[in-house]
Amino acid sequence: MPDCEHPIATVQTGRVPSDVTATTTSPLCTKRIALVGAFGLVGREALGILEGRGVPLDNVRAFGSLRSAGTQLPYAGDELTIVETDEQSFEGCDIVLFCSDDKTARSFAPIAVDHGARVVDNSSAFRLTPDVPLVVPEVNGEQLDSGPSVVANPNCSTIILLMAIEPFRRAFGVSSAVVSTYQAASGAGRTALEELRSQTADVLSGRRPEPTAFPVTCAFNVFPHESPVDVGTGLSVEESKIIAEARKILAMPQLDIAPTCIRVPVERCHSQSVVLELERPATHGAVAEVAGAFPGVAFNADPTALITPRDIAGTDLVSISRARLSRDGRRLSLWVCGDQLRKGAALNAIQIAECLALR
Amino acid sequence: MPDCEHPIATVQTGRVPSDVTATTTSPLCTKRIALVGAFGLVGREALGILEGRGVPLDNVRAFGSLRSAGTQLPYAGDELTIVETDEQSFEGCDIVLFCSDDKTARSFAPIAVDHGARVVDNSSAFRLTPDVPLVVPEVNGEQLDSGPSVVANPNCSTIILLMAIEPFRRAFGVSSAVVSTYQAASGAGRTALEELRSQTADVLSGRRPEPTAFPVTCAFNVFPHESPVDVGTGLSVEESKIIAEARKILAMPQLDIAPTCIRVPVERCHSQSVVLELERPATHGAVAEVAGAFPGVAFNADPTALITPRDIAGTDLVSISRARLSRDGRRLSLWVCGDQLRKGAALNAIQIAECLALR
Repeated sequence: MPDCEHPIATVQTGRVPSDVTATTTSPLCTKRIALVGAFGLVGREALGILEGRGVPLDNVRAFGSLRSAGTQLPYAGDELTIVETDEQSFEGCDIVLFCSDDKTARSFAPIAVDHGARVVDNSSAFRLTPDVPLVVPEVNGEQLDSGPSVVANPNCSTIILLMAIEPFRRAFGVSSAVVSTYQAASGAGRTALEELRSQTADVLSGRRPEPTAFPVTCAFNVFPHESPVDVGTGLSVEESKIIAEARKILAMPQLDIAPTCIRVPVERCHSQSVVLELERPATHGAVAEVAGAFPGVAFNADPTALITPRDIAGTDLVSISRARLSRDGRRLSLWVCGDQLRKGAALNAIQIAECLALR
Repeated sequence: MPDCEHPIATVQTGRVPSDVTATTTSPLCTKRIALVGAFGLVGREALGILEGRGVPLDNVRAFGSLRSAGTQLPYAGDELTIVETDEQSFEGCDIVLFCSDDKTARSFAPIAVDHGARVVDNSSAFRLTPDVPLVVPEVNGEQLDSGPSVVANPNCSTIILLMAIEPFRRAFGVSSAVVSTYQAASGAGRTALEELRSQTADVLSGRRPEPTAFPVTCAFNVFPHESPVDVGTGLSVEESKIIAEARKILAMPQLDIAPTCIRVPVERCHSQSVVLELERPATHGAVAEVAGAFPGVAFNADPTALITPRDIAGTDLVSISRARLSRDGRRLSLWVCGDQLRKGAALNAIQIAECLALR
C-alpha cells in the first residue's frame, strides 16, 4: 500500500519511489468525489488530474457558483455539468475537494463533513486553524494517518518552497530561509492570465496598458505581489502566508523565513530563488543525493542547466537546479520551479485525498 | 564645487543634495569627449545624457566598429556621425568613454591614455585590475580624488545593488547580502531587446518561439542569467561579477554576498530583491532617514507602494521600497529598481567623468 510520504502522483512522472509501482491504481477510483469551484483554473486542473487517474465520470460531481452553473466541462470523453453548490450537494460523497474562495469553503465544508465526507480545502479558510492539518504529503504526510475530516491544502508558494526546503532540512537542518519569488500571472486566476495576454498585445501595438485584474501593468513588468500589505510588518498577505504556513507544516514555530513575493509576466509555473542556512555543512554530492532521492522533486545536478517555468509548466515535479554552496558548506542557494496549478494546488490536494482514501 | 559623493546627476531628478544647486553646469561642457561604442544601447544612452547636460556637438566625437561607422545619430538638434575607432581617434580628447566590448576597451584605452585623455570604461576589461579604481561615485567617489587616468564603471547589477546597500552599510554595518535579480532583456543588448518583442508577438500568435539572442525562450518566461557558468562554484559570470566587484568597491574582500541572477521579460530597468544582515539593529525610522538622505536614491516609505521597473525605466535614481525589518532589527529586506542603462551604465560613467573633469 502506498505510503503518503511517497505519493502516488509521482508515478505519473517517470520517477517512481521504490515502494510505489507504476501499476498502482488511484484509491480515488472507487470513491464518490465532489469538486467545488470546478470552473476556476485550479478546479479544471483538478478535474484533469482525476481524469488522468482514471476516476470514472459517474463518480465525479462538479459544483460552482450560480454564475458558472450549467457550464459543461469535458471529462473522459464525455461532459460534466457544473451545478450550483447547495446544502444537499454532498449527499453520498466520500471526498469533497474545495477549489473555491475562502467564503464558499467556510460555508460548505462543515456541511460536507456533516454528510460524512472528508474535505480537502484548497482555500486559505482553515489553513491556520489549529486542529486542521495543513499538509504537503511528501513533507508531513503522517498528519493524515489519523484520517482527519478536514485537511487544508497550503498556498501554492508555500508548497513549492517546502518541497525545496524539506530534503535539505532532513539531511542538514535548516536554520533560516530567504526566498524571492517569480510568480506566474495565472496564480491570480483566469482573468489575470487573460489580462497578461491582452495587455501584452496592447503594449506591442503601442496601446496604453490598462490594468484591471492587477493593480499595476503586468505586461513586460514585474511587481510586488498584489495581495494586501500589513503596514506594521510591511509583509504582503502572500508573504505572511508563506511564513505562517511553513512554520505550521514543519512544526517549527520560530523558523526564520524572509520572503519577497513578486509577480512576473509568466503565464504558468512559479519560480523561486531560495537561499538556505544549514545547521550542518553540506557537500555538492550530498545535496544531489538527498534532493535526487526526495519524492516529487526533480533535481538537476548540471550547474549550467537553465531550467525555466516554461519547461516545468504542466508537469508534476518541483524542479530544483543551480545548487550553489558557500565555501563552508553552510549556505545553499537554489533555483526552484514548480507548476503552481498542479503541485502548488490541484495535484497536492488530490495527493492528500488519495492518502485519505486509503485510511 | 560639487563633491563627487553628491554627484551632479542627482540635479536632474528633483532631489538636490544640499551642496549641489540646480543651476550647476556640468564640468563636461568645456571638455572634448570621445564616445567609443556609440551605436549600442549604452552608447546612445550616454549621448542622450551628454546632450541633456548641455555638452555642445562640437565637443563630442562618436566612434564605433567598421559595421556601425557612417551611422548618423541625432544630437542636440543636429547629427553626429559614427567614425570607425582607430589609433588617431583620441587626439585632442580630454575624456574617452568606452561603451564597447572588453576587447575594444583593452585595445584602445591605453592609446587614449597615451594621448593624455582620461578613460572611463564601461566594459569589464579593467574592473578587477588592482590599480584601476572601480567607482560608484555615491559609494566610493573619493577614489577619483587622485585623478586616475583609467576608471572602470561597474557591472549594472553591481551598481544598483551597491546603491541599495551603501546607505545601510554606513548607518548600521552590513555583514551579508542575499540578492535575487529580475534583469531586463535590454541588459543583453539591442538584439536581445528586439528578440523579447518579436518572440512575445510570436507566442501571442501561436507561433513557436525560436531563441537566438538568448539561449532559451525569453517571451513569458524567466531564466537564470545567460552568462557562462563556472562549474566549480556554480556561479554565472554575472553573479561572480557582483561578488568580486562589490568586494572591491567596498574594500571588503570577505564580504558575504549570495547572488542569484535571473532574466525577466521586462524591456528596461533591473529589479532586485535584497536581504541584508545588519551588524547593528535598525528601526523603520532610521532606515527611512538614512535611505532618504542618500544621494541618487529615491526611498519610498509607504509599505503598500508597488514600485515597478516600468515606473523607473528612463529615470536616474535607484528606487528602494518595501523595506521590511525582522523583529530584532538585524535583517532588512528591500525591493530595488534601477535603470540599468542609466545609473547601471551610462549615467554612472558620466558621473565619473564629471568628477574627473573637476580635478
